[in-house]
Formats: sequence, C-alpha cells, structure tokens
Amino acid sequence: MRSKEVHLLHRPTGLATEGDFAVRSIEVDDNADLIVRNEQFSVDPYMRGRMIDRKSYLPPFELNRPMLGAAVGKVVRSRVPEFVVGDYVTTMLGWREYATGRASDFQKIDVSLGSPSTFLNALGTPGLTAWTGLFKVANLKQGETVFVSAAAGAVGSIACQLAKTRGCRVIGSAGSSDKCEWLTEVAGVDSAINYKSGNLQTALAENAPGGIDVYFENVGGTHLEAALDNMKTSGRIAVCGMIEHYNDIEPRPGPRNLSLIIQKTIRMEGFLVSRYFEHFFDYRQEMSALVRDGKIHVAETVVSGIEKAPKAFLSLFSGAKMGKILVTI
Amino acid sequence: MRSKEVHLLHRPTGLATEGDFAVRSIEVDDNADLIVRNEQFSVDPYMRGRMIDRKSYLPPFELNRPMLGAAVGKVVRSRVPEFVVGDYVTTMLGWREYATGRASDFQKIDVSLGSPSTFLNALGTPGLTAWTGLFKVANLKQGETVFVSAAAGAVGSIACQLAKTRGCRVIGSAGSSDKCEWLTEVAGVDSAINYKSGNLQTALAENAPGGIDVYFENVGGTHLEAALDNMKTSGRIAVCGMIEHYNDIEPRPGPRNLSLIIQKTIRMEGFLVSRYFEHFFDYRQEMSALVRDGKIHVAETVVSGIEKAPKAFLSLFSGAKMGKILVTI
Repeated sequence: MRSKEVHLLHRPTGLATEGDFAVRSIEVDDNADLIVRNEQFSVDPYMRGRMIDRKSYLPPFELNRPMLGAAVGKVVRSRVPEFVVGDYVTTMLGWREYATGRASDFQKIDVSLGSPSTFLNALGTPGLTAWTGLFKVANLKQGETVFVSAAAGAVGSIACQLAKTRGCRVIGSAGSSDKCEWLTEVAGVDSAINYKSGNLQTALAENAPGGIDVYFENVGGTHLEAALDNMKTSGRIAVCGMIEHYNDIEPRPGPRNLSLIIQKTIRMEGFLVSRYFEHFFDYRQEMSALVRDGKIHVAETVVSGIEKAPKAFLSLFSGAKMGKILVTI
Repeated sequence: MRSKEVHLLHRPTGLATEGDFAVRSIEVDDNADLIVRNEQFSVDPYMRGRMIDRKSYLPPFELNRPMLGAAVGKVVRSRVPEFVVGDYVTTMLGWREYATGRASDFQKIDVSLGSPSTFLNALGTPGLTAWTGLFKVANLKQGETVFVSAAAGAVGSIACQLAKTRGCRVIGSAGSSDKCEWLTEVAGVDSAINYKSGNLQTALAENAPGGIDVYFENVGGTHLEAALDNMKTSGRIAVCGMIEHYNDIEPRPGPRNLSLIIQKTIRMEGFLVSRYFEHFFDYRQEMSALVRDGKIHVAETVVSGIEKAPKAFLSLFSGAKMGKILVTI
C-alpha cells in the first residue's frame, strides 16, 4: 500500500514558495502497530517557525521528511488493543495520506461531540488556544472589553465568540470586508475593523472609547502598537502569535510605545497551548455544547487534495482565506 | 519666613537643561497647619515623565510651580494634634526648603529604623520598588537567576542585594568600572557587566549560561533585547522603568525579538510602586533589619544645596552618579 506525503525540501528565506515542498509517494510500513487513513489535516502559521533550523519549543522539521501537524483519520489496521478498525483518531503526524506508528502517537476522539474535522478546529488545538488565551492567560472577566486580532482566523474566530458567551464587548480586526461582515453578522462581534481600509489606532479608539481590558494578540507589528495605545490601566495581553513577523528575513523592531506597559501597568504574556492540554477534556465538553446549540459558529475553509497543501499553507500569510484552513484527502 | 523652591520653567524637548528650572524665593504660608523644614529631597528618573503635558498615572508638573517628589524633614510648626515640633516626616511636596500643608500631606517616620535620608532610599520608595518588582511582580524564588539593569542605581542596587538575601544568582549591568566594582565588592552580586565596554548580549550568555529566570527592567532599548535573548522558558520580566527612552524626542522602536515571549512563554509586566504602598510598613521592618545587620549596603550620592538640584536631576540620565541621588539643604 502506498501513501502520498508532503515533504519539506528547502528551509525558506522569507515567505515560503510551493517549490519548498514536494509531494512524494512512499510505501506504507505494513508492520506498524496502527495504520490510519487521514481524512483531513491542518495547515497552521506556527509551522513556519518549525521550518527554521533553530532550538525552540518544538524541534525543526526535517528536510525530505513529511510536514508534521494535526490530522484526523480512521483506523484501517490495528495490532494493539486500544484501537479497532473504524475508530476516529487525531495525530500530529501531519501532511500524509496514511499515518503509521505506535498507539501513543494517536488519540481516539468521540465523534458524538462533533464531526471529525471539528477536532482540528473548534474542538481541537485552535479552540483550546482561544480558550486558554482568554481565560487562563488573560483572565478575562464577564463584561470586559476584548480586542482580537486576526479575528476571522482559526483561533481568533473562536476567541471572539467565546468572549461573547461571557457577555464581553468584542472588537475584532480582519483584512477584508467579507471577513468583517462574517464577524458582525455570524460571529456576533460588536465591532469589526478592516485594518486595511483605515487607521487601526483611530478605529480602536472609536470602538473602545473606554479602553481595552484584554488584547488577544495574533498579529504583532502595528496591531500591537495600536492595541497598547488603547489598553486600559491594568489591561492584559495574551500573546498567542505574531503572524506579521513569521516571514521576516531581518528581525523587525517592536512597538514604539512599549513603555506604556509601565504607565498602564499592563501584563503581557506569551503562551503555548501545549502547556494546557490537561484541560482538553473539560474544554471539549463545554465547546461541543456551544457548537451544538449554535452559540459558536465554526469558520472553515476546506481545500481538496494533498497536492494543494503547500498553496493552502501559503494562503495563511496572505490572509486570503476565512477561518480554519483544512486540507481534505 | 522665606523658602527657596525649584520651579519648572519650561517643558523640555529631549534631555532637560538647567535653564528649564529656576530657583525662587517665596514667602512661607504662616497659616498652614504644618510647616516642615526639609533636610533632603529626591531626584528621580520618573520625574521626566511628569514634565510632559499628558494624561498619565500622575498629573503633569505645573509650570512656575515647585518640582514635586519625595522629601524628608522636621516639623518646625504644628497646629494639628498628629504632629509635634521635632517630628521627622516625609512628603511628596518636593524641591523646596519649607513644605507647608495639611496633616494628610505628611507621613511621620520612625527614625529608630534608620537615618532620615534612608527613608528616601532603602526604607523609602526606591526600596519598596525593588522589593515589589522582585517579589510581587516577578515572583522571584529562592535560588533563581536574576538580571538587574541599572544595577548601581537607586532601585537596582537594592534589587540586587534583596535577591542575594534569597540565595539567587545575581547579574547586574552598569555603565562604568567603578560601579561594577561596587556591585561585586560591596553589593555582592555574582557578575557585574559594564555594558559600555562590550556586547551585553554575549556577556549575559556567558554569565547566565543556563538562562535568566527574572529580569528586573530599568533601562529598555538594547538591554531588553539582550535580556529577551537570554531568558529561560517561563521567565518573568518586571518592568520598573525604561530610562533609555525617557528623553526620546521621537518614540524609539521596541526590541526586535519581542516574539520570543511566545516561544519562551515569558510574562512581562509593568508596575507602579504606588499600587503596593499597603506593604510599606512590613517592608520597612524587614529592610531596616537588613540594613542594620549589614546585609544590605545603601548606595547614596549626596549633592549639597538646593541650587544644585537641576544638575543632580540631569546626572540621572548621564549615569554619572552612584546609587540614590539626594539633595541636602
């Protein structure tokens, strides 16, 4: 049995190109404890960091090996008692048709909670990331004012809606009028700012005249600077990502107003969702009820075919797509 | 009775000059509840911020009015039951020979705990600032590695020594070999780095090969960038000040490596000591014992004569002086 995989060919400088990847066909290891046929896998901004050969919280991707990351699929062969054929599982084994490995490489999921793809989105790491940033890092309280950048993205779209379930005033930024329309019409945010069509600093001041209690940071750059200017005293910034910086060839300077964190006694904290996986079970119970009851709308862009994975990944940085980007195979 | 005062004449652009101040003689208000003869007053970096006409955590200084700030003196007339002639008190009424006002403008001090000038230094706001940053903001633990910038300054010199009382490994940076010698020989820090004589980033990596748990930030600029590069995972940065930026005419960009706070899950928190004044009483008990037992050495530069106050203030930004800078009158 053969499996198509997407391999990393070169470590990109700046923005990656499709030529940095190759789709290859390999022979599946028949002796593996488990063989899983992936149905969908995830492309995520953080993967850009793993393409760099450096010490970080995750090891760099290896060249000429598959891109790793979250995937969901069905067991087609099992030699271990924990899994039977037909079980749905998630893995971190990434961009490939068939995932093989040991039992510990796979987590069984309860598809009564949501469709398999939801486990890569609202019921998966993006959802837990939004929840962690708001409630565990920023300590968001009922009725506060929250600003979410990349608000129509995988994490941001869930953060906005989770904050609304706590009666918060939510302001989201996004890069197109379609996204802004989705944010106000579907996600129910109070104000959506198209940061490409005006001055973000001014728009924030207008939409949060009393200031921002919590900033959920996904972007960096001018977004962070505008948010700092508009934070309330004792505001909190949960730093989830800084996508504007991920393709920088030369490191870019930080915000010119960082010393505001003294005058405003701001707490700014970077976090990694992996430190909060202990909450996954409780989180999934809460979130599946919210999705089922229509209180959270899942935003998803599905791209068909493993060959399209590199293009789908690159679309994360142009902001062309809405919500969580998944590749179906 | 007449009193000399130092008034602010102009709001400076960039670094202030002596011409921005004027020494004036005024008639003391004989009807005041209390009249205090100041013996010493404090010049502090934060005063630069109050010279700017803007909304911040403290109102701006008024033009043609005395510079405000911490002072210590003795009651020479009292019409209120709380104070008698001869009592030592502190005030925030600043750069003047005689301070007059209501009882609530003065705090009686217990000079059995330390000399009057200590109440502007180790037993005063600089000491409480060091203690707050280390223990309330950065949550410093026994045995951790701490980096303190402006380590021979008023706050830094106490922060270094307080951290040593908790068995920490302490690295301090300062701008001259004299200051570095004082840090290692008197304050007992483990490594003192003269940031003007080499590369701070490299020196930190050499002196904290396992990384920094807590950075006590007084400087900003390249200090913050070098510290971020050398922080441990889950390190904490207590942001007390960013003196390098206080005289900027155009806001200067922040650190180019700020996104490290995600990968290293760093918490960075600005603080103002005024939020922690409830701890003053307990703090003074602890600190007075440490000073008395020779566990903390007080660094002080005393300038004589109220006319020298502007020059003393300006010396804060050139880094010419050691420890807390006080003006005696």
